[in-house]
Amino acid sequence: MNDTTSRYQVSIEADPNLPIIRMTRDFDATPAQLMRAHTDPELFARWVGPNGTDTRILDWDATTGGRWRYVAGHDGEEYGFHGCFHEVSERRIVQTFTFDGQPEGVALETLRFEDLGDGRTRLHAQSLVDSFEGRDEWLASGMETGVVDGYAKLDALIAEL
Amino acid sequence: MNDTTSRYQVSIEADPNLPIIRMTRDFDATPAQLMRAHTDPELFARWVGPNGTDTRILDWDATTGGRWRYVAGHDGEEYGFHGCFHEVSERRIVQTFTFDGQPEGVALETLRFEDLGDGRTRLHAQSLVDSFEGRDEWLASGMETGVVDGYAKLDALIAEL
Repeated sequence: MNDTTSRYQVSIEADPNLPIIRMTRDFDATPAQLMRAHTDPELFARWVGPNGTDTRILDWDATTGGRWRYVAGHDGEEYGFHGCFHEVSERRIVQTFTFDGQPEGVALETLRFEDLGDGRTRLHAQSLVDSFEGRDEWLASGMETGVVDGYAKLDALIAEL
Repeated sequence: MNDTTSRYQVSIEADPNLPIIRMTRDFDATPAQLMRAHTDPELFARWVGPNGTDTRILDWDATTGGRWRYVAGHDGEEYGFHGCFHEVSERRIVQTFTFDGQPEGVALETLRFEDLGDGRTRLHAQSLVDSFEGRDEWLASGMETGVVDGYAKLDALIAEL
């Protein structure tokens, strides 16, 4: 499955003046359904990452002040990620994000779920880091494939939410 | 007590190209002593904030993935703050920070303790936010008084560490 089979495209933009990546993506789901898909560890593990990823959740407390950690297996390699949840509320999720392979790097991520009505929602995701170099490396890392594949898997999950 | 009585001055700088505040301050303490002063809630409550502040810790788990929340009483007003600890390790503390009076705003803070030898340490603190406007409002808010007073109180605490 890839994005050519999805009804909606993801927009990924680098801010020209701030070390921020912004992503926007519509879904045929309510904000509450999308919130569940991002906070329920079993659901989250089923859609995050590129196709062929096997995600094991090691730690998960998706509440304000909670924490998360998972390992993604892909093409015989394992990739670890971890962070803490600054805020999990109806209006947004704010969390930190580190790829264990680059432990110095920390992103501050904000997810907002905009209700478009008629069972549709626009996800606004923002990722803030402390340098333009780090932001641009992340953009060049192939992250787009993971995002496009992941959201296509999330589309397919929505019917179960 | 104010900074004119302190041996060391704090440097507070706004990055011209990034929405970051950087602070540097030397202490007559080891990195381990400064780490304790930042992670032990009873010690932290005694020095943080401007003179005359009465800080009550409401939640505190200064470990990787932990959380914190406190209320600072000052001049008859109460000010709440909260966040999560992304990383608490020997090399650094990375945490989020929100002033409850501005719940939209979230800073990502990084503290590093550089060992200068002879029982002295240089604290490098970085605060990253997602807009220059937010960063400059914080700088104009009188935060410098809290920083200067707080570190002078921390100087006085070091003998007990």
